[in-house]
Amino acid sequence: MDSNELKRLLEGVATGEISVERSLERLKHLPFEDLGFANVDHHRELRQGYPEVIFGQGKSIGQIERIMVALLDRGNNVLVTRLAEEQALALCARFPNACHHQDARCITVEQRPIEIVGRGTVLVISAGTSDIPVAAEAVVTARIMGNQVEQLFDVGVAGIHRLLARRELLQTATVLVVVAGMEGALPSVVGGLVDRPVIAVPTSVGYGASFGGIAALLGMLNSCASGVTVVNIDNGFGAGYAASLINRAS
Amino acid sequence: MDSNELKRLLEGVATGEISVERSLERLKHLPFEDLGFANVDHHRELRQGYPEVIFGQGKSIGQIERIMVALLDRGNNVLVTRLAEEQALALCARFPNACHHQDARCITVEQRPIEIVGRGTVLVISAGTSDIPVAAEAVVTARIMGNQVEQLFDVGVAGIHRLLARRELLQTATVLVVVAGMEGALPSVVGGLVDRPVIAVPTSVGYGASFGGIAALLGMLNSCASGVTVVNIDNGFGAGYAASLINRAS
Amino acid sequence: MDSNELKRLLEGVATGEISVERSLERLKHLPFEDLGFANVDHHRELRQGYPEVIFGQGKSIGQIERIMVALLDRGNNVLVTRLAEEQALALCARFPNACHHQDARCITVEQRPIEIVGRGTVLVISAGTSDIPVAAEAVVTARIMGNQVEQLFDVGVAGIHRLLARRELLQTATVLVVVAGMEGALPSVVGGLVDRPVIAVPTSVGYGASFGGIAALLGMLNSCASGVTVVNIDNGFGAGYAASLINRAS
Amino acid sequence: MDSNELKRLLEGVATGEISVERSLERLKHLPFEDLGFANVDHHRELRQGYPEVIFGQGKSIGQIERIMVALLDRGNNVLVTRLAEEQALALCARFPNACHHQDARCITVEQRPIEIVGRGTVLVISAGTSDIPVAAEAVVTARIMGNQVEQLFDVGVAGIHRLLARRELLQTATVLVVVAGMEGALPSVVGGLVDRPVIAVPTSVGYGASFGGIAALLGMLNSCASGVTVVNIDNGFGAGYAASLINRAS
Amino acid sequence: MDSNELKRLLEGVATGEISVERSLERLKHLPFEDLGFANVDHHRELRQGYPEVIFGQGKSIGQIERIMVALLDRGNNVLVTRLAEEQALALCARFPNACHHQDARCITVEQRPIEIVGRGTVLVISAGTSDIPVAAEAVVTARIMGNQVEQLFDVGVAGIHRLLARRELLQTATVLVVVAGMEGALPSVVGGLVDRPVIAVPTSVGYGASFGGIAALLGMLNSCASGVTVVNIDNGFGAGYAASLINRAS
Amino acid sequence: MDSNELKRLLEGVATGEISVERSLERLKHLPFEDLGFANVDHHRELRQGYPEVIFGQGKSIGQIERIMVALLDRGNNVLVTRLAEEQALALCARFPNACHHQDARCITVEQRPIEIVGRGTVLVISAGTSDIPVAAEAVVTARIMGNQVEQLFDVGVAGIHRLLARRELLQTATVLVVVAGMEGALPSVVGGLVDRPVIAVPTSVGYGASFGGIAALLGMLNSCASGVTVVNIDNGFGAGYAASLINRAS
Amino acid sequence: MDSNELKRLLEGVATGEISVERSLERLKHLPFEDLGFANVDHHRELRQGYPEVIFGQGKSIGQIERIMVALLDRGNNVLVTRLAEEQALALCARFPNACHHQDARCITVEQRPIEIVGRGTVLVISAGTSDIPVAAEAVVTARIMGNQVEQLFDVGVAGIHRLLARRELLQTATVLVVVAGMEGALPSVVGGLVDRPVIAVPTSVGYGASFGGIAALLGMLNSCASGVTVVNIDNGFGAGYAASLINRAS
Amino acid sequence: MDSNELKRLLEGVATGEISVERSLERLKHLPFEDLGFANVDHHRELRQGYPEVIFGQGKSIGQIERIMVALLDRGNNVLVTRLAEEQALALCARFPNACHHQDARCITVEQRPIEIVGRGTVLVISAGTSDIPVAAEAVVTARIMGNQVEQLFDVGVAGIHRLLARRELLQTATVLVVVAGMEGALPSVVGGLVDRPVIAVPTSVGYGASFGGIAALLGMLNSCASGVTVVNIDNGFGAGYAASLINRAS
Repeated sequence: MDSNELKRLLEGVATGEISVERSLERLKHLPFEDLGFANVDHHRELRQGYPEVIFGQGKSIGQIERIMVALLDRGNNVLVTRLAEEQALALCARFPNACHHQDARCITVEQRPIEIVGRGTVLVISAGTSDIPVAAEAVVTARIMGNQVEQLFDVGVAGIHRLLARRELLQTATVLVVVAGMEGALPSVVGGLVDRPVIAVPTSVGYGASFGGIAALLGMLNSCASGVTVVNIDNGFGAGYAASLINRAS
Repeated sequence: MDSNELKRLLEGVATGEISVERSLERLKHLPFEDLGFANVDHHRELRQGYPEVIFGQGKSIGQIERIMVALLDRGNNVLVTRLAEEQALALCARFPNACHHQDARCITVEQRPIEIVGRGTVLVISAGTSDIPVAAEAVVTARIMGNQVEQLFDVGVAGIHRLLARRELLQTATVLVVVAGMEGALPSVVGGLVDRPVIAVPTSVGYGASFGGIAALLGMLNSCASGVTVVNIDNGFGAGYAASLINRAS
Repeated sequence: MDSNELKRLLEGVATGEISVERSLERLKHLPFEDLGFANVDHHRELRQGYPEVIFGQGKSIGQIERIMVALLDRGNNVLVTRLAEEQALALCARFPNACHHQDARCITVEQRPIEIVGRGTVLVISAGTSDIPVAAEAVVTARIMGNQVEQLFDVGVAGIHRLLARRELLQTATVLVVVAGMEGALPSVVGGLVDRPVIAVPTSVGYGASFGGIAALLGMLNSCASGVTVVNIDNGFGAGYAASLINRAS
Repeated sequence: MDSNELKRLLEGVATGEISVERSLERLKHLPFEDLGFANVDHHRELRQGYPEVIFGQGKSIGQIERIMVALLDRGNNVLVTRLAEEQALALCARFPNACHHQDARCITVEQRPIEIVGRGTVLVISAGTSDIPVAAEAVVTARIMGNQVEQLFDVGVAGIHRLLARRELLQTATVLVVVAGMEGALPSVVGGLVDRPVIAVPTSVGYGASFGGIAALLGMLNSCASGVTVVNIDNGFGAGYAASLINRAS
Repeated sequence: MDSNELKRLLEGVATGEISVERSLERLKHLPFEDLGFANVDHHRELRQGYPEVIFGQGKSIGQIERIMVALLDRGNNVLVTRLAEEQALALCARFPNACHHQDARCITVEQRPIEIVGRGTVLVISAGTSDIPVAAEAVVTARIMGNQVEQLFDVGVAGIHRLLARRELLQTATVLVVVAGMEGALPSVVGGLVDRPVIAVPTSVGYGASFGGIAALLGMLNSCASGVTVVNIDNGFGAGYAASLINRAS
Repeated sequence: MDSNELKRLLEGVATGEISVERSLERLKHLPFEDLGFANVDHHRELRQGYPEVIFGQGKSIGQIERIMVALLDRGNNVLVTRLAEEQALALCARFPNACHHQDARCITVEQRPIEIVGRGTVLVISAGTSDIPVAAEAVVTARIMGNQVEQLFDVGVAGIHRLLARRELLQTATVLVVVAGMEGALPSVVGGLVDRPVIAVPTSVGYGASFGGIAALLGMLNSCASGVTVVNIDNGFGAGYAASLINRAS
Repeated sequence: MDSNELKRLLEGVATGEISVERSLERLKHLPFEDLGFANVDHHRELRQGYPEVIFGQGKSIGQIERIMVALLDRGNNVLVTRLAEEQALALCARFPNACHHQDARCITVEQRPIEIVGRGTVLVISAGTSDIPVAAEAVVTARIMGNQVEQLFDVGVAGIHRLLARRELLQTATVLVVVAGMEGALPSVVGGLVDRPVIAVPTSVGYGASFGGIAALLGMLNSCASGVTVVNIDNGFGAGYAASLINRAS
Repeated sequence: MDSNELKRLLEGVATGEISVERSLERLKHLPFEDLGFANVDHHRELRQGYPEVIFGQGKSIGQIERIMVALLDRGNNVLVTRLAEEQALALCARFPNACHHQDARCITVEQRPIEIVGRGTVLVISAGTSDIPVAAEAVVTARIMGNQVEQLFDVGVAGIHRLLARRELLQTATVLVVVAGMEGALPSVVGGLVDRPVIAVPTSVGYGASFGGIAALLGMLNSCASGVTVVNIDNGFGAGYAASLINRAS
């Protein structure tokens, strides 16, 4: 039952064609999901400015292409994450206005200008150069969701002066995304320097007892700094998305 | 908005007091959960014969007592699981018609006779004597949910003839619950002997590399016998409950 | 010793050719497995309608072909699971009446019509599109075992309205197979909506802290909904098989 | 060296009492931490309204008492978390104006009124009754940090209608804290219903394969809903703290 | 059906009272377990000299007492393992001829002299003094099963000269049980010095990353010395039992 | 210093060429390993009949070839394990008298006849067809070490009658090697049927929660049957070697 | 055979009383451990100044007392680690010259003055106040082994300025022991500030996903700072001991 | 702000061009890292003789080349670790004075002679031939950092005489690096033979329950020998680096 059907039912009640009892019966068993579209619509309005997102990994180029076409038809911007080099190149050939973010392994198609909807700056920090793909994914995600984004890469805790030297930059951010592999200690240090929400992203960078990012993940979950929350290993997109929600919240 | 309110709204439409548009608007945003009670009611009817269940562990005697009183007032039978000896005794003192199933660490209060609603027999098998508390919990649960229940205890795989000697009993069951700790091999053997659903229950019985039931759990998940499904470690209640659903399904 | 030998022995006793003592001696040491074939036969009868199943993974095309020929000679239908694309194509070339279920990575050969022996409907639900291969394996398995099967794909918990919109479909099933990767939360939600047995299948879909399906597996084992049982990670076949046993049980 | 010393040094340079070279030498080796107090002071100002927090677990009553006295002397409000019943009672006897939050296992001393500094509402949701201590800790923390806090308890995914019925409440929050044990599925469902930051708190509630909260933790890290970040097992304080930072961020 | 019934049946066939067909029918369905007792008897004979064994942990004193009485009535010797001090004392009070092996946490009752049935010597070696309870359990087990047993304690690898000094003793054993906690390296060193079967027993001795014996267990499973096999953590009984089987095998 | 040097030293003492003090000094610091060759020789004698063994995995064909030449020059038989197909073929081309055991992924070169030195029969049992490579490695190892070897493959616990049908074969073995993947339950069942040492070999056969053999390994370590010891995952060689030591022990 | 016997043997050779052959024979089988005492003695000399150490945990007061008496008789100083309060008090009552290090859970008996044998200073740093017992154990160990020891406690990474403020102290140490629980990030930061060996000690301080110190342990093993090595969880003694060896090495 | 700027500022104060207040203001907010270069310089001086190090794994040949050029321009020696064969060959073609350490998977460029700055000898020991790449990485690292390095390979604990035969070599080292896979027992044995710091390096050599080096790692962390510290799995570089710091410390 959609909005039109519902209107017809009520008109029937208004005209007496349908008794109160019968309409009550129908409405009682009305599947809420059909009414639900109202919520969905309202939802959609709130979401203006959000890109449509496709998780590229494990999908064929053909599949991604079809989904992109469908999404672009709705008029929104599109973000495709976790693309292998060859996937990205093939898609860029197909969508000439696509932008390939090589370090972030993403492509974006911006068919309407990105409107800045975030209140402040999202600062994305990474510990090592190997963490950059994940950090860059967070940057691309936060940008296309309408945020002012700054980045500060290669400031791992083993050379703490590199981070301390940028302390003022840290203070200017509304929300910080901190990306680190190996021992994952950077979010604790950053969390101790700022009074803003810190989203920690463990990466699978490391070897041996890093266990594909478990060491960094556990380190971040046990952070002695308050205000640090954590996302899944290598989940730069998730961190950028959560940072956007935080930066936008009004 | 409950059923009465909905009726008043529709009567207003019928009398013209409320316009179609305005009622449409209200109904569009009608929280489905209020209509939802119809489903809930229907649900409840289907559930006739099911006991109310309280997970006793971690609750004070006073808390359990209050919940029991509330549930008994609805007229249903009540099952309280995972009770320490002293909890059980205190509750039995308070509810004289309660039955204490010492081996199963449960009490039941049956204020109306249990109606057999299962189609066949639930057979609960356990490997060792230490697994009996979990197996007994499954037995008590399946019984109070309206099933014919048989039990076959202490037939572990290290003495396979004990199990084989009861092969006919195995064949008569509609669904089997198989409880085992240590290496948890019994469900595989049973699953190879019958063509019925087998619910495997790993127990925390063991020491050292049993890791509190992980060895048995993994063994059961990797069963080479088809038709074996698994519940959580020591979850006799869950197995008895699932067996009841299977036995009742029509 | 087979049935004929046993008969000859008894005839020898009847005619006095063999003394009671000597026959007693022989029978005492009679290997039960030879008598056991009676059970096996009975077993086989019960199993009518079950397909022969081959686990394709790790077998060469030649090996699978030889096993298929042998099984088909018994007159039964055949199901081969876990086939790589190239294995499946080679086998289809060899067995022209084979049907290739590409999404399920299976082939089936139905040399006699599938007789519906299940009492009701098996409903297979999957959370995400990446879970479809496992879900499809469950569908193919349940179908060839003689069940009416319905499927409901891509209804993950992050968009709960998609699932709620199909609540009536959920209510019509006799047994539900629920397939999910990542956090594996769907079986809990489904289990709370129905009063039927739910078989949960964790998949290895995910990355990082999904640990190849461990996150989903643990989630399902700890389901707060009663009546949920679990099979091994990615074990769509096992879930379809168990669902068939449940649906058939009389 | 503090600000005054630095001033005296520069005055010496200005008057020629100290040569440029000598002052250069001193400044080169100037411990930055002493200049750093400027930041620290600024920090403190930003932190106005934050309570002083003591982690009570593993400390003796005497130790906590001494720390409380010291902190109260600074004029701030004080929060003590993770207190056993007897610790809490002893401290309340000693500090008559302390408030004992029994369910949250905390005490607070509010020697100046809490000023609301958060922009919106922090909504704390919990799945089961056993999760309440952790949820209540988040509530107490967010409240004393100057937030409007709402709570919605016992709305686990196995009875999804309880949550859906409060969908409007969900929509009104600026940030949500979602607390769940066992399979930890609630944050995924909540995250799919709102467009706000969700902080997921796994609890150690459960048994067997919940492994002291690992199952819930992994479930939350693998959430299929975007915008969900995670804190340590049972870390209600951390979630309340992070929610406050998010709610306050300007 | 026991031996007598079988004889009666065959006599009926011999006399013609029972037809061949009817007896064939009965025998076909003859439960093998009843014929099986022949094997069992034969089994028992082989087992002469084996003690009856009770796993004491988790059993009440009353339960152990009842089982002991039952077992002693069969005329065999009895071994009770994993007894707490108070259990052992209570049982010794009840069974005056019981021998309490305090270091091994066992009691034995030897109502007939132990006959040496092993071909050579079982040598039990332990790494540290804390491993002695497990090693002593192996000693007591091997002794009561009829073996000549030697012991060599406190010869851990950190002081390798202690072990090397006893190299001749090592060479005289038929089978060696090597007990070690912490890194569990001793079996590798011993295995490299002898050409006899080595049974490695990891113990839960250690702290931190010993994880209750996992470190020692993994070390032993990965032994670079050939001929080393492993039993469960702290399973001195199992090692003593397996050593007895090896020493006895003819 | 070897035996000759030592002799020369003593002769120098005897002739007075070397003072007692100086020889004492030299002998005090005499590296014992040089004296040790006496033990080594003795060792070697004991080892007569043992093959030289090369672990092929991770070595180049050239490396293996060089080691083989060196070992063959000592006159012993040679066993090379864990060879990929192409490694094996290349080595067989180089050593025409080599025998390629394809299922066991081994080659052997027998330049002198294998003398049977074991007292009885080693029986190697495997659960599934996928476990055969590991079982075959155990067979080849035990054979070339001078044992009578029997094999019994594909008798997994899900079809327990296949195993029970061969019960007499089980009874004839002096030592049993039992190979199984998935839940690894077969050693427990076999261990309950025989009174001989059972060496359990977990295999990495399985998927999902088999975790590369961990499930089978844990199952075997927790075996409820006494007399079962365990080797590393997929370590067929180690099991065959240990079985040989047990079978030979005198 | 000790040094005197060896001398007598050689004198016999010199005088011709013992033939070269016979002495050769005796020396060939000379147990190396008897020659070995030379090394042992030399060893002992090197060890001058090392305390005798007793691991107190799991030992009775009587056992510790007996070992202490024996060790004190050799004239050395004694260190007893991991003592419960009541153990320590009882031992202090028995040994009036014992010193109870309450925070380190140790007692020491210094019957001869500690001679400083280390070349520089050992600096022991701890992250939080809960880590102090482990850090203090390292301090006590390093002191009694003859080192100048400095300590710097409560300088965790969440307040990095506390550590940076003491940078000069860090630079003065020859070797640093860094103790931390929770995320264990401190050694990485310290390791980045100094060019000296850093021994990292993870502690079991934390809760939830700290898993008894695993998080800290993994963090330290994956440290991005070079020159960091790690000891077992809570192993303050081991770190102090290794630091002493490093500080003393000449 | 660098040293020159700081001088100009102070000169301005001296000449009165800049007021005390203004310079105070500037200095208060002076980023400490700019003053910090003094420390950095001092640091650098200490570091004379240290090579620049590049972690090659995961970097493209082009990236490594660019970094090498940049580092070589500073005049230092360069070490590149974890290079695949093809990476190494390509870089050697580009840098003709590069030295390819094939077994260590490293290349070095020594543009100035290595000055021996270590006080004694670093001894690198490995258990098996498969551990050589990791051991060789430690050797190359320690050499280029200015140490006398000895190596002792293939002396695993299963043939303990090989190690004992070289006991004198062990005694001559100032610091020992001990590399082992499988059960990782070698560091315990070595640690018991010497009174020097031992750095243990677990390797990923092994299969099955070695779990990629976890078994060796745990074994080393639980070493019963005092003075053993541990680095990450396969971290030969880290061990060589830490050994250098220890050997150099004055």
